[in-house]
Amino acid sequence: MSIITFIGAGQMASALTFPAFENGHEVRLVGTPLDRDVIDGLRKDNFHINLKRTLHEGIKYYQVEEMEEAIKGADAILGGVSSFGVDWFAEEVLPKIPRNIPLLSVTKGMIDQEDGSMMTYPEFWEQTEGGKGLSINAIGGPCTSYELADKDNSCVAFCGRNMETLHYLKSLFTTDYYHISCSTDVVGVECAVALKNAYALGVSLAVGLAEKKEGIGAVHYNSQAALFGQGVREMRKLLAIVGGNDDNIVYGAGDLYVTVFGGRTRKIGTLLGRGLSFDQAMEELKGVTLESIVIATRTARAVKRLDALGKYKKEEFPLLMHVDEIINQGKPVNIPWKSFEVEYDG
Amino acid sequence: MSIITFIGAGQMASALTFPAFENGHEVRLVGTPLDRDVIDGLRKDNFHINLKRTLHEGIKYYQVEEMEEAIKGADAILGGVSSFGVDWFAEEVLPKIPRNIPLLSVTKGMIDQEDGSMMTYPEFWEQTEGGKGLSINAIGGPCTSYELADKDNSCVAFCGRNMETLHYLKSLFTTDYYHISCSTDVVGVECAVALKNAYALGVSLAVGLAEKKEGIGAVHYNSQAALFGQGVREMRKLLAIVGGNDDNIVYGAGDLYVTVFGGRTRKIGTLLGRGLSFDQAMEELKGVTLESIVIATRTARAVKRLDALGKYKKEEFPLLMHVDEIINQGKPVNIPWKSFEVEYDG
Repeated sequence: MSIITFIGAGQMASALTFPAFENGHEVRLVGTPLDRDVIDGLRKDNFHINLKRTLHEGIKYYQVEEMEEAIKGADAILGGVSSFGVDWFAEEVLPKIPRNIPLLSVTKGMIDQEDGSMMTYPEFWEQTEGGKGLSINAIGGPCTSYELADKDNSCVAFCGRNMETLHYLKSLFTTDYYHISCSTDVVGVECAVALKNAYALGVSLAVGLAEKKEGIGAVHYNSQAALFGQGVREMRKLLAIVGGNDDNIVYGAGDLYVTVFGGRTRKIGTLLGRGLSFDQAMEELKGVTLESIVIATRTARAVKRLDALGKYKKEEFPLLMHVDEIINQGKPVNIPWKSFEVEYDG
Repeated sequence: MSIITFIGAGQMASALTFPAFENGHEVRLVGTPLDRDVIDGLRKDNFHINLKRTLHEGIKYYQVEEMEEAIKGADAILGGVSSFGVDWFAEEVLPKIPRNIPLLSVTKGMIDQEDGSMMTYPEFWEQTEGGKGLSINAIGGPCTSYELADKDNSCVAFCGRNMETLHYLKSLFTTDYYHISCSTDVVGVECAVALKNAYALGVSLAVGLAEKKEGIGAVHYNSQAALFGQGVREMRKLLAIVGGNDDNIVYGAGDLYVTVFGGRTRKIGTLLGRGLSFDQAMEELKGVTLESIVIATRTARAVKRLDALGKYKKEEFPLLMHVDEIINQGKPVNIPWKSFEVEYDG
């Protein structure tokens, strides 16, 4: 039996308590400052008010002030903040983790740099004062929290610098419904699964466009599939730019698939496709954190910098550029279909 | 204005009359021996009894006996048979096409050879007596016939040996809703879009599995996405084996997406996932032609031959092998999830 301390009681981290607890480990779930009500609720009856599932009896719950106590004696740390908690995690959590204990993070996303390159969160954290010398690993791949909690079969990838550490982390979480690949290609896995949030927004524009044309509930898959294919094309190019192994498109495509159907990103894309402006759509989704907006904006900014530096042409990424126009320049949805046509004369 | 003769009045060929006719071309639609009722119906009121759409007034309809008349003066031939009509097409149609007129085929599929290699239909036809010296091109990519008829934006690829010919064919069909990429990588495009039928069956097993567990209508996307990702992984490996450019995975992934949602393959996969035997499922789908069964069987046979020859390991294709067991050995559905776990230590 190991002791695993989960920091962040969001939906994904909380869903991961299922395989960990069922494997016989001691599970300690620590809320962030934003999770106060979640932890209060869990302490009462194990019911997670956002995940809307009852967690296993026996999990120990902690408010953020009790984090150090929760970390004491832990064998591994599960980091469960969103993109919006990355800095907080660097400042308030990383310094408290003993250097000999591995961290496994579920946060998906990347940070664009001045030179047009993109940095993964594990890389970012490794460079912070508090992250130095830590083993920082991450989870990628298609897995929504609700379905993990419901034990739907899910295939994910754990990535990190050291295969032995990945094997240890895998041993903590693997079950007959949670299937884990291991990869030392951190930038490849993380890039693929971060980008899917940006492209899921792109694909779901077609959902709204069909509804605009034929009424809410109308479904057309040709246009969704066209945007899906274009998304895969642009993701593969971006994977090559960051130096990730091309095989990671498997996680990217799978994750794009599940996000188009399962996630909040579908909602914003659909609203935009129906004809709402970005501001109107965001107003309608008030209070919802949207990773897709963050990653689309950052990736577009990186591509535009690379274009300005003469390294890549932004015209190679017409779907990403259009998503960026919509969310950051208030432009209406007008899919550049003809720019998706390519020619291959090999 | 050009004259385009469509041979085969199935759903896909008939849907393609929309862009062709709207571009001002003379469209001649010839039924196969199986399309007699379709042509009779179209002649009455332009309504296609299977596509369930009214075609444009002005299209000329022909029964199979009138094929030669329909070909006379044509500038291009559109071939619209299913996999089950490939031999008929070789024997009855190809010899009647003048050698200077290009053929564009919508038939998706491949044929396995004794040595474990896979041959595309254009390659197969080129080697037949009737096909010698003909320019044989093909359409791949995600596009269901109903939605094309309804003018949903669709992105496809035309492939063939000569880029100029492809440009000409593209000029006949391109519209503001039908978007065409061109590729001389015939084996790459055709392999990607043929394989998607096999893997769409694999992905939709998860639909039925969820229904078996929780009742009809239950939906889980994690397991679908896991199978989708595994499908993409195996398709990429098969693409490499046939020598196709890896970029074609864009068409394969898009086509897999649309087939999982739009096609008949979803039905068989769902029934199998619910627990029906293959024979029971086929009984329920009586009379429906299933490309997915053909291509899954052929591809599995090719992989097993390559395995026997020591060229590739069949264990590299666990999803395909399982689909093959289900449809050809009567085995029950039991997804080999753990065999989808991979390790990358780069």
